[in-house]
Amino acid sequence: MKKELAVVLVSGGMDSLVTAAIAAGEYEKLAFLHLNYGQRTQTKELECFKKIADHYGVKPSLQKVIDVSFLKQIGGSSLTDDTIDVKKYSGESEEIPDSYVPFRNTHIVAMAVSWAEVIGAKKIFIGAVEEDSSGYPDCRPSYYKALNNLIKEGTKDGDIEVITPVINLSKEQIVLKAFELKAPLESSWSCYDREDSACGVCDSCALRLKGFQKAKKEDPINYIERPTYA
Amino acid sequence: MKKELAVVLVSGGMDSLVTAAIAAGEYEKLAFLHLNYGQRTQTKELECFKKIADHYGVKPSLQKVIDVSFLKQIGGSSLTDDTIDVKKYSGESEEIPDSYVPFRNTHIVAMAVSWAEVIGAKKIFIGAVEEDSSGYPDCRPSYYKALNNLIKEGTKDGDIEVITPVINLSKEQIVLKAFELKAPLESSWSCYDREDSACGVCDSCALRLKGFQKAKKEDPINYIERPTYA
Repeated sequence: MKKELAVVLVSGGMDSLVTAAIAAGEYEKLAFLHLNYGQRTQTKELECFKKIADHYGVKPSLQKVIDVSFLKQIGGSSLTDDTIDVKKYSGESEEIPDSYVPFRNTHIVAMAVSWAEVIGAKKIFIGAVEEDSSGYPDCRPSYYKALNNLIKEGTKDGDIEVITPVINLSKEQIVLKAFELKAPLESSWSCYDREDSACGVCDSCALRLKGFQKAKKEDPINYIERPTYA
Repeated sequence: MKKELAVVLVSGGMDSLVTAAIAAGEYEKLAFLHLNYGQRTQTKELECFKKIADHYGVKPSLQKVIDVSFLKQIGGSSLTDDTIDVKKYSGESEEIPDSYVPFRNTHIVAMAVSWAEVIGAKKIFIGAVEEDSSGYPDCRPSYYKALNNLIKEGTKDGDIEVITPVINLSKEQIVLKAFELKAPLESSWSCYDREDSACGVCDSCALRLKGFQKAKKEDPINYIERPTYA
């Protein structure tokens, strides 16, 4: 028997798409939350969010888009600051990239927790991925453990939990999972730089394409160029 | 010797005023952060924020106001939802009041953490008070312990810390502390309901007035009515 209501954070990217597909298999009713934080590609990501929500039959009243452009006011990141160029992919690196928004996932999950409490959902799905996340400190399992502890302390009933079903998967495994669950990959978007066709060369495109190439699958979206990464 | 730079969350209320006064005694340079979240009295609170910032010599470039009216979109609270009336004070209660914004302090502190990381501050002062906070779960010391653990896990260097210098004080002690530190109480605002003169009867006015009455001090701000609570 499927469980009742879960919130899913859906950016429109591949990781959140697969996370939504997993949640759809376990929960009767889904509520989708999308955040616009002033990123370059927000129109395209919102379009993907809506397509994915419709694909999984999420009721319009449970599709929520929140503008969090205050993150732009805080600055310090190429995702939210138009004056900083998006860097091209330059191979594996231990360094935190300049697309880093300090403590970003805490803002994102806090929205989901507040909303979950209002609509009575007890689970929140987020597509955080440790590998391929270029060292963002808030993509690690230990961060989510600490976050769940905070939610226990900071909410009315203390019974809301964040679930990260793809956190230990590689991009290759995420691609394979998407095919296994028949997730609508053509309705997802990963490029940080463009909205018409994916650039193929930003960090996020590179990780996505590498995942498809390792999985020996074809990415259904359009690219300006498709370098070989794998 | 005073320590270098600290962020202080300043709502414009009495608790954050005293917190700012304490931080000013310990830190060489302060950065003040104020959040507009669509509350009824936001114009008045912003005015108080600016007066307090000027009083403590905070540079304009380190006075930051962030609009977080997305909290209004989440709903579920009389502080952010104009269709719900602000309740009058009805004595001590164990219940969480309807002015509760789910998980609110997490949003607030997350902003401060992001900003602190950008400007290089290592400490964040917040005027959370456990007593008199009507059971908000995110005003308890255990919540801040969990939050500091999360910050350790979720930030680049893991060395930012939230400090709650008034968390164990009663409103009476906060009033006395304000007088001891010569904090500009006339530039603070607590009323949830009005901006011209404080109403004197909302929960927040009642707690403030009770604090002054127990401390045997005169509150310098204007009230429509000043019931006796102590």
